[in-house]
Amino acid sequence: MNSIDKLSEIFARFPGIGPRQAKRFVYFLLSRNGDYVGELVRAVQSLKKEIVQCGECMRFFAKDGQVLKLCSICADDTRDSSMLMIVPRDIDFEAVEKSGSYKGFYFILGGVVPILEKEPEKRIRIKELDTRIKNAKDIKEIILAMNANIDGENTTEFIKQKYQGLPLIFSTLGRGLSTGAELEYADPETLKNAFLHRTK
Amino acid sequence: MNSIDKLSEIFARFPGIGPRQAKRFVYFLLSRNGDYVGELVRAVQSLKKEIVQCGECMRFFAKDGQVLKLCSICADDTRDSSMLMIVPRDIDFEAVEKSGSYKGFYFILGGVVPILEKEPEKRIRIKELDTRIKNAKDIKEIILAMNANIDGENTTEFIKQKYQGLPLIFSTLGRGLSTGAELEYADPETLKNAFLHRTK
Repeated sequence: MNSIDKLSEIFARFPGIGPRQAKRFVYFLLSRNGDYVGELVRAVQSLKKEIVQCGECMRFFAKDGQVLKLCSICADDTRDSSMLMIVPRDIDFEAVEKSGSYKGFYFILGGVVPILEKEPEKRIRIKELDTRIKNAKDIKEIILAMNANIDGENTTEFIKQKYQGLPLIFSTLGRGLSTGAELEYADPETLKNAFLHRTK
Repeated sequence: MNSIDKLSEIFARFPGIGPRQAKRFVYFLLSRNGDYVGELVRAVQSLKKEIVQCGECMRFFAKDGQVLKLCSICADDTRDSSMLMIVPRDIDFEAVEKSGSYKGFYFILGGVVPILEKEPEKRIRIKELDTRIKNAKDIKEIILAMNANIDGENTTEFIKQKYQGLPLIFSTLGRGLSTGAELEYADPETLKNAFLHRTK
């Protein structure tokens, strides 16, 4: 296999990338000058060196040369330790944190549990979540912030059932109209939820 | 800037990739084990070493350890030297070659000339095309195999005008219904072309 095919194959394993776009990436790199390709190689190499995983929330963060076990959020004792929000991925954590609406702690589940999955422990960080929940004596509420789809709902159910004996409140994110949405174009399920969760 | 942001920025310059998907790529790499990332780095590094550009058609090819100036097609003297097909990109060349319908030579233009572009020589390999056309004494027909859109048509016009004094036949790819297309869903422009280019 020549290096065009080899690299195409690697890129084709990237999320959302098919064989055609993978090949486009390779030709794009071939058409760039050496600086750009070198920059890419250096950035990929330093990624694994500079980025560590937080021991509490499991998210990836830049350690900036220091020996840190906790990320800036888990190390921040001004945050509300009564709330733990479980999100599927790092990128979901970023979206919530950017919204500025939440001041508790997080846990990055690392994925979701699809319906009919027989080995959920291979899809999500269930051992790490066990440890996180055991160690956190202040937690009162667990917010299950999953995607608003079937796999998200299945994951919520799976976690709720697993911890049902514990003295914890479980909550999920509100459902209804997105900001800027027009009634005309809202799907029936969204309208149903918007009606059910109307505020008075 | 930490290495997550740095690598996201590099991926965001890939064709068709926005900042969100670029970040998804970074988190994807972080979640893989070291082998995968090492494999990616090695493949990118060997790309520039193993792949060279053909001196005639300008496409990228694997030299396989040999010192080659021409790719396997340009070096193949059983091909029809009376025809030169100009395609925008390497990936377009691959599509045509896979179809098995053409046995002449190719030239990879490296892009297209958008309408209103004031410096077309920065978008396409016009110097290299000049040399290619000058050196090829057998060429009788130039097939302008551009995308069936406005920029493709503009590129065809640009090249035709540039070489209008030369004793060459210029042709473009046939237009009409794609194989498997249903009349019901064909756009008016396609139907117009299908009618104009009907075969009797």
